[in-house]
Amino acid sequence: MRILGIDPGIERTGWAVIDASRGASKALAYDCIMTGRGLPLETRLVTIFTSLRRIIKTHKPRQSAIEKLYFSANVKTALTVGHARGVVLLALALENLPVFHYNPLEIKLAVSGYGRADKSQVKKMVNFLLHLDAQIKIDDVSDALAVALTHAAIKKPE
Amino acid sequence: MRILGIDPGIERTGWAVIDASRGASKALAYDCIMTGRGLPLETRLVTIFTSLRRIIKTHKPRQSAIEKLYFSANVKTALTVGHARGVVLLALALENLPVFHYNPLEIKLAVSGYGRADKSQVKKMVNFLLHLDAQIKIDDVSDALAVALTHAAIKKPE
Repeated sequence: MRILGIDPGIERTGWAVIDASRGASKALAYDCIMTGRGLPLETRLVTIFTSLRRIIKTHKPRQSAIEKLYFSANVKTALTVGHARGVVLLALALENLPVFHYNPLEIKLAVSGYGRADKSQVKKMVNFLLHLDAQIKIDDVSDALAVALTHAAIKKPE
Repeated sequence: MRILGIDPGIERTGWAVIDASRGASKALAYDCIMTGRGLPLETRLVTIFTSLRRIIKTHKPRQSAIEKLYFSANVKTALTVGHARGVVLLALALENLPVFHYNPLEIKLAVSGYGRADKSQVKKMVNFLLHLDAQIKIDDVSDALAVALTHAAIKKPE
């Protein structure tokens, strides 16, 4: 089962495509969609939307996974993330990709076995589980891999 | 100058197309994009996106106006509105429609001449300015007309 994990954001949207099999999961491709800081919000949203649709067309995932809305952020952050997340969900729906939502606790438990794992522990486990040679540096990419792995673990695909 | 005013929301996205001329503005079309309450968020976003693109293709506005992010809402509301607003801005950008942002004070001042006008006063002024026969019932539609009128007043189009 090919899974697309996404961590949406206006500046950086992390994405990861993994192949999940009964034994282990393998990372096929992962990166970060970056948008220009000085550009109007709508232009940045177009970049996220068109990049994500191209990624889906290129890697042809069958399902997608995204972190659930996280309410502890402040209002301004929530509004901004909401814009990016809305456009991401739209792209997934237009590409007929089923979307599965996981909350931070589920992700930490699935990846590290520990619900209070911090970012660096999650990163290390993502590297370990996917046998990545180079340490992932960008949080958003690591988070996208983590949510994809969570879906692989919870959905128990063949 | 033909202006599209929008008031985004997940349940209801109000929209209004007005023709603004030197003397007075005229409402061409206005309505509300409704999305089904029980549907997944991504499906509701697709409805907003495809409806808005169809509205733009039908009425061919030259510019668009939208209320600025409003930070006094709570985090949950902000996230939800952010999703709808992101998809709206994306649709406007993909249709090459310039977007102008106005804050609530500017809108109230432009429409009613009074920065603390309440919803019912704004509604009455919208009706008066556009010579509408029937009172607009839905707040989101009235707000979409109001932000379009604000752009007409502030940009002083021919």
